[in-house]
Amino acid sequence: MKKVVLLGAGNVAWSLANAIDSLDGYSLIQIYGLRIERAQEIAQESGRATATDDLSKINTSADIYIIALKDEAIASVADMIQYNGDALWVHTSGSVPMSAISRLSPRHGVLYPLQTFSRGRQVDISEATIFTEGSDPITEKEIAGLARALTPHVMHADSMSRSRLHAAAVFACNFTNHLWTISADVLSKSDIPFSVMKPLIEETFKKAIQNGPEAGQTGPARRGDIATIRKHLEIVGPDYAPIYKLISQNIIDYYIPDEPNRL
Amino acid sequence: MKKVVLLGAGNVAWSLANAIDSLDGYSLIQIYGLRIERAQEIAQESGRATATDDLSKINTSADIYIIALKDEAIASVADMIQYNGDALWVHTSGSVPMSAISRLSPRHGVLYPLQTFSRGRQVDISEATIFTEGSDPITEKEIAGLARALTPHVMHADSMSRSRLHAAAVFACNFTNHLWTISADVLSKSDIPFSVMKPLIEETFKKAIQNGPEAGQTGPARRGDIATIRKHLEIVGPDYAPIYKLISQNIIDYYIPDEPNRL
Repeated sequence: MKKVVLLGAGNVAWSLANAIDSLDGYSLIQIYGLRIERAQEIAQESGRATATDDLSKINTSADIYIIALKDEAIASVADMIQYNGDALWVHTSGSVPMSAISRLSPRHGVLYPLQTFSRGRQVDISEATIFTEGSDPITEKEIAGLARALTPHVMHADSMSRSRLHAAAVFACNFTNHLWTISADVLSKSDIPFSVMKPLIEETFKKAIQNGPEAGQTGPARRGDIATIRKHLEIVGPDYAPIYKLISQNIIDYYIPDEPNRL
Repeated sequence: MKKVVLLGAGNVAWSLANAIDSLDGYSLIQIYGLRIERAQEIAQESGRATATDDLSKINTSADIYIIALKDEAIASVADMIQYNGDALWVHTSGSVPMSAISRLSPRHGVLYPLQTFSRGRQVDISEATIFTEGSDPITEKEIAGLARALTPHVMHADSMSRSRLHAAAVFACNFTNHLWTISADVLSKSDIPFSVMKPLIEETFKKAIQNGPEAGQTGPARRGDIATIRKHLEIVGPDYAPIYKLISQNIIDYYIPDEPNRL
């Protein structure tokens, strides 16, 4: 049985604690959280783990330490921890280099689950891909072993690849979500609920996954339909017209580079 | 039994023909297509309908005429048709005003299904919302009756609302799809397949539908994490940095208007 200490009590930590608790061969023994109530919540749900908000009380007998803190806190918390063992230490961030936690143990690395986590909302981590990096091949194998207990989808990714993954996820999810907010805002002017878009988005998404998004591009910009684009620029108004214009021009440049009209 | 003539042989026409054929009380009798082979294909799948590419041979005994042509062809085709009856004429476009077909019959209107259609790909039209508009209340009721035979989700929308719907759909689907293409392109530089994004996008989408997209916005711009944004602008390169920057600034303006840093 591998003993696991989890540092962090936010969305990622909550979701990982849930997933690790249901694994054979791994046992969560302690949760560290800056806010003790949140750490206690996770510890109580887990049942066997204790909670602390004191870095000097981190249990030093664990086999694996998982730092699931906010990106900007990882390096500074790692610098405050007194630890002299050689257990495995990993962080879970897409945008923090592995070196940020190298002083903690010779055996360190990254276990980055590509998923968006919300506290209180169970997501199936076994559908996500986990990207791993290790300080040496044996350590990486051990990290990949833990990752494979959580999901069949495990890939190696160094710091550069993780940065690309993170930037790609911002486009695919964060920006996409904001475009949905804009869409909902435009619809609200006619009292139409955003839910009318659901089947349309689902179908667009299915096609993007089946054939790749490039093959499924449609719409006024893809057709070079400048008249409709100009009409839409008026309809969406000054808050959103610059985004409409820039993405449309990018689509035109991508698919019909010899289109003479510019927006 | 209401006899239906369908004008058009593209993606929308193919999907509507399929849906209408399976309705009780409606019978497809003729398909007009500029390209006769495509009209014949649909007619053959339907079984009972005939095909023509000659506007002067449009069957004048039908109860309902559905113009499912490309936006830019609707008005010009309508102007070429010789028809003196008073059957119901509708078009299926989100961006063409109802008046484009008003000369064909005193009873005319719009039946706009909010879905993306692909020839050969059966989509469940009963999940989509159909937006209707009629030349008078009785005509609109008749159009809504046909729409309700196809889906339980039927709403009234005038030309302005349809224009907003169309612009909103461009944001929610066409632009979203292009952001996925950008995401796939960024990932390809590390040989990572776009499919790794699937669970992340699915979860983002589920949250957006359940709680509205505004409530679920996350990411560097939402947090005002300027350092990560600057790093990503370098990673994604000059083709995509302007889009990354503009959407990020729009998210910052939307959620943290007092953020002093500008990108």
